[in-house]
Amino acid sequence: MAGNTFGKLFTVTTFGESHGIAIGGIVDGCPPNLEISEADLQIDLDRRKPGTSRYTTARREGDEVQILSGVFEGKTTGTSIGLLINNTNQRSQDYSKIKDTFRPGHADYTYQQKYGLRDYRGGGRSSARETAIRVAAGGIAKKYLKQVHGIEIHGYLSQLGPIKIDSIDHSVTNTNAFFCPDETKLDALDAYMRDLIKAGDSIGAKVSVVAKNMPVGLGEPIFDRLDADLASAMMGINAVKGVEIGDGFAVVEQKGSEHRDEITPQGFKTNRAGGILGGISSGQDVVVHLALKPTSSISVPGDSVDIHGQAAEIITKGRHDPCVGIRAVPIAEAMTAIVLMDHLLRHRGQNADVTSITPIIPGQA
Amino acid sequence: MAGNTFGKLFTVTTFGESHGIAIGGIVDGCPPNLEISEADLQIDLDRRKPGTSRYTTARREGDEVQILSGVFEGKTTGTSIGLLINNTNQRSQDYSKIKDTFRPGHADYTYQQKYGLRDYRGGGRSSARETAIRVAAGGIAKKYLKQVHGIEIHGYLSQLGPIKIDSIDHSVTNTNAFFCPDETKLDALDAYMRDLIKAGDSIGAKVSVVAKNMPVGLGEPIFDRLDADLASAMMGINAVKGVEIGDGFAVVEQKGSEHRDEITPQGFKTNRAGGILGGISSGQDVVVHLALKPTSSISVPGDSVDIHGQAAEIITKGRHDPCVGIRAVPIAEAMTAIVLMDHLLRHRGQNADVTSITPIIPGQA
Amino acid sequence: MAGNTFGKLFTVTTFGESHGIAIGGIVDGCPPNLEISEADLQIDLDRRKPGTSRYTTARREGDEVQILSGVFEGKTTGTSIGLLINNTNQRSQDYSKIKDTFRPGHADYTYQQKYGLRDYRGGGRSSARETAIRVAAGGIAKKYLKQVHGIEIHGYLSQLGPIKIDSIDHSVTNTNAFFCPDETKLDALDAYMRDLIKAGDSIGAKVSVVAKNMPVGLGEPIFDRLDADLASAMMGINAVKGVEIGDGFAVVEQKGSEHRDEITPQGFKTNRAGGILGGISSGQDVVVHLALKPTSSISVPGDSVDIHGQAAEIITKGRHDPCVGIRAVPIAEAMTAIVLMDHLLRHRGQNADVTSITPIIPGQA
Amino acid sequence: MAGNTFGKLFTVTTFGESHGIAIGGIVDGCPPNLEISEADLQIDLDRRKPGTSRYTTARREGDEVQILSGVFEGKTTGTSIGLLINNTNQRSQDYSKIKDTFRPGHADYTYQQKYGLRDYRGGGRSSARETAIRVAAGGIAKKYLKQVHGIEIHGYLSQLGPIKIDSIDHSVTNTNAFFCPDETKLDALDAYMRDLIKAGDSIGAKVSVVAKNMPVGLGEPIFDRLDADLASAMMGINAVKGVEIGDGFAVVEQKGSEHRDEITPQGFKTNRAGGILGGISSGQDVVVHLALKPTSSISVPGDSVDIHGQAAEIITKGRHDPCVGIRAVPIAEAMTAIVLMDHLLRHRGQNADVTSITPIIPGQA
Repeated sequence: MAGNTFGKLFTVTTFGESHGIAIGGIVDGCPPNLEISEADLQIDLDRRKPGTSRYTTARREGDEVQILSGVFEGKTTGTSIGLLINNTNQRSQDYSKIKDTFRPGHADYTYQQKYGLRDYRGGGRSSARETAIRVAAGGIAKKYLKQVHGIEIHGYLSQLGPIKIDSIDHSVTNTNAFFCPDETKLDALDAYMRDLIKAGDSIGAKVSVVAKNMPVGLGEPIFDRLDADLASAMMGINAVKGVEIGDGFAVVEQKGSEHRDEITPQGFKTNRAGGILGGISSGQDVVVHLALKPTSSISVPGDSVDIHGQAAEIITKGRHDPCVGIRAVPIAEAMTAIVLMDHLLRHRGQNADVTSITPIIPGQA
Repeated sequence: MAGNTFGKLFTVTTFGESHGIAIGGIVDGCPPNLEISEADLQIDLDRRKPGTSRYTTARREGDEVQILSGVFEGKTTGTSIGLLINNTNQRSQDYSKIKDTFRPGHADYTYQQKYGLRDYRGGGRSSARETAIRVAAGGIAKKYLKQVHGIEIHGYLSQLGPIKIDSIDHSVTNTNAFFCPDETKLDALDAYMRDLIKAGDSIGAKVSVVAKNMPVGLGEPIFDRLDADLASAMMGINAVKGVEIGDGFAVVEQKGSEHRDEITPQGFKTNRAGGILGGISSGQDVVVHLALKPTSSISVPGDSVDIHGQAAEIITKGRHDPCVGIRAVPIAEAMTAIVLMDHLLRHRGQNADVTSITPIIPGQA
Repeated sequence: MAGNTFGKLFTVTTFGESHGIAIGGIVDGCPPNLEISEADLQIDLDRRKPGTSRYTTARREGDEVQILSGVFEGKTTGTSIGLLINNTNQRSQDYSKIKDTFRPGHADYTYQQKYGLRDYRGGGRSSARETAIRVAAGGIAKKYLKQVHGIEIHGYLSQLGPIKIDSIDHSVTNTNAFFCPDETKLDALDAYMRDLIKAGDSIGAKVSVVAKNMPVGLGEPIFDRLDADLASAMMGINAVKGVEIGDGFAVVEQKGSEHRDEITPQGFKTNRAGGILGGISSGQDVVVHLALKPTSSISVPGDSVDIHGQAAEIITKGRHDPCVGIRAVPIAEAMTAIVLMDHLLRHRGQNADVTSITPIIPGQA
Repeated sequence: MAGNTFGKLFTVTTFGESHGIAIGGIVDGCPPNLEISEADLQIDLDRRKPGTSRYTTARREGDEVQILSGVFEGKTTGTSIGLLINNTNQRSQDYSKIKDTFRPGHADYTYQQKYGLRDYRGGGRSSARETAIRVAAGGIAKKYLKQVHGIEIHGYLSQLGPIKIDSIDHSVTNTNAFFCPDETKLDALDAYMRDLIKAGDSIGAKVSVVAKNMPVGLGEPIFDRLDADLASAMMGINAVKGVEIGDGFAVVEQKGSEHRDEITPQGFKTNRAGGILGGISSGQDVVVHLALKPTSSISVPGDSVDIHGQAAEIITKGRHDPCVGIRAVPIAEAMTAIVLMDHLLRHRGQNADVTSITPIIPGQA
């Protein structure tokens, strides 16, 4: 397919542009008999929703999801689940200026060349608006993973520009507008963002996701490894430029005697591998980190060209997030849930009759 | 499928264990009329081959690939290409000791749990031996990309432990055993590896790949992005724990005014994006970096458990690479070629009648 | 995926139940720059729509399709196309009786066993209502095939119960409620249907599809043959129990000297093969026939069991087609268009640079 | 992919030409811990093998399959299974004459147009030789289905030219060279074939497959229906022009009151549906019929054109089957097993935690 579907057994297919009539998607392969409602999905949609704090775009999107099919009397039926979110509150006029000009760092130029035409309004299909459907779809996976296997997925902001967290308290993450798990950093983040907004600039961020109570055995060796699919899912999120599993790039300077996670009858001594060995989950926490670039939609003037290749200065007005990384937290959680769900079903399909996903080695000691 | 196939239009499916009769694969979707021979594929196979220097395992593998089908009178016919490499020179007895013990940092435990049994000889299916077929398959893609579009793919070692390169000269890369493009680092690398081998330990590495003369328009938005597929391909290489496109994790501390690659009629001013915008190639060089962990197969004793969960000390004898990252260079090039090939065919399928892949913006100014 | 997606490069994914809020789908992989509007799709939707004649169900379905994305200023953009049809005029009470009973010949029992629960209203997901989306999606493929390659797809009723057509005039097909291309059979069909309806029974039918102005070279050898994919597409239409390409089952009694379509410089002498050789289109007309069973929703009492396995008599009231085959004509055309479209893109992807789809042998002499 | 892979969870990918070095394939997704050996696969390979009776080609093919991977100490490991059959006893000179001429009814012309070149030796990739690998792969599925679920698959010849069977005794099928389950027809078949061979002509055939002890619930609604996948699998077998499920084309003249399989607490009264309702197995026997055309490789002269479009007379010498349908029996069984296996794993993946595949309605009363 042309790339709008993710997954093999549990699949998510999406459609919709930033300023079209609606965005939507189809979740296929969800097991039957799961209790699910729009309210379940709205929780994460509201976490992703813009306009909720001074640190994100002032755009107000209703982001109210409708479940159109696949659920009967409150339970999934095993058939495909249609999801729909109507678009509201677009200000297309904001974008008329950039109709014929390519915004640096955006997909304007590549879409124009790939397709010969593009829906330029708000970035059209390349807008992060589309990720609302990934979040809704991920909500279904999240609920199944939690109910059936007790798997919990926690995302958080681990760095914003120069500000790094020193501690992780998942109970704190959702109590602040930054999804920051370290309360001691909130004042610094607030000050940093105020200056940034004043300067009309934007900043990058690092987001992390941890999956707890993992079963062992998820992931297909060689190509469809759990880590490879997570890498694809994360790199597929708008603005992401890097993905790490466990210690990630730090392993470049590690020695084997230092890196290998030794094992004792009480469990693994460490988790540098991030819960994945040979592409298969080990039962330890799965740990993923992603790097998000600063949005290029800023009011600082920049050089570009128009569709005729002529020089043009660009200033992106519109309403944009000074740090797109912040709102990526629920998106990263959703994609993690979708990947785990897909691999859970795949593992069950091939191995259900011979193996158990209960680890013989306990989690980290 | 159970994860042994990569790609959608240009696909590579592999089979084979480290100590089985043979390893092999099927390349499906290769355009017809491409002149190809075993000699073309042997070039990269020999670059990947162990036993060629004091810095890699002493195992000698013939690694002679046979093309069994899909090529007639020296040209591809458009049908599936069967590839076979017979296994030779295994010393299975080396592995008998670890039959019932899980090597820390290896896939022994996860395979055992996932499947209920495992071919423990040399790691069986989880051995990097399988990557020889990826390299052979990539050789086909490399040749097509070069001949039909002039695309060139250069991989190199960018860091080994604490030693980072300062300059890149692709003409140097293949003249040394480290695939190092910076001649000034060769002595340091040699000294470091000698000490490491003496200590019986291993070290991580960073490998980079650059694709030059890129067409614009490759990559499918949303999920099958060029960067997402590259991330999957790279994270799917044994021992890889991190992937970056362009500036990668450095973007976390970049500002939008600094990161966005401004455009002039003469071309892009910079290439922080690594040649990909919105998941689609921009015509600039595609730049990918990967982090490889140090092998866990070391002679330094370590704690583990046996398949009954009882404590066991492990010392991996056998013959192993002190730095698996070195030999990953041709593997990373091959997977890059396979991803580009797949996306070239996909783009052509959907857009051939309406778009040109010749960029309207020149490469980097 | 769980089976709600069809195609590899040009894909159609659907959702929706007979009595849910709406049915819909996503068309992925449509080339950009195709002029398309809801009116284009409505033509075939109206042909499929029930309640248009005394021979079909009295249910009136608006069947008004909305294009939610993928089209900008009247042209496809190359991104996924969201399609939506709101459900109206359901009479759910009609179905309350069969909530706990399995209708013979329907999917009630198999859905109940497969999923453990089912949306029993109007057959839920198993209702032919879902095919409206296939027709809408097929309309997009039809228009592209016609505009870009001049391919024309003609479906028609070739037999209804004992009544077989003697001649084919495509200009007649859409002038009558039977999609019958033989005007001389209309009175017989009318009389037969009146008696059938009086008896409260139903009848089977044979539907045929011909694709004209075919390019040569569409179809992938071995598994994804053009004929294999057509067989899958047709057998996947509700109530279909048989599929034939060209002479179909008549070949069982043919001799090789009689069957083979001999070739002259002026073209093929005959077209027993139905335009497909070795799974690849030959440039002759592609000819497909399908057999549709009589609907089991009839008012003639029948034996069945309830979900507890207890005997139960069943009489299906509701509003049903006495011959579901009639309305299958536009559905069969749509699925043919989708298969041809998918193979056109696939062929172009793999072979665009080396081959032409213009036949060197003219069509039938 | 380019069409050389079949299946979604249990996949078979093949390569190889009639006169190349070898043919082979990869079976991916086989559950671990299945006892399997080359001898298990050789049984059906020998049934398919030519040269075993006066009624088939005199070509002697060793058809000895090698298992190269995926099996360890006699059991499947869950990793991909490499299969290889070396080609022997080709007489390429037989084919030199038709190098530049298109054999009517063969794929010579379509391959030449699709790819711009072709391996003309023995039909190259389009030769039925490739089906040997499908038979070997199907042998793995057959054994699993039998051992784990008691599913038995019986293929047989149901018609050859004008000769139809009157009775089915599966114990007879494999005791004669025709795979005929009706002993009373053997003399007629023998006489018919002797005359046919004398005339240098060929004849069509009808082959049937029955799967017994079926679980209920296999098959994905809408597109990946069990019947749709069977139709694809069967139409994908060389020379097949028609596929029927259950009563097939006979349903065209059936009434609903006659067709629907009524249900009693003791089981279904009839099995006109062929064991599939709404695309999902009902637990009754799955019944499939296929029509195979007569081979076009006959010594009766015929008209054709050469690759320059010039008229040419063609007489196919070489060694060919006068009725290719006969040897299709084990191929049809193999493809049936592969489809059932794929759907068993898919069903288990999505529904394993909520449903049982044990029918609540007994098989046919």
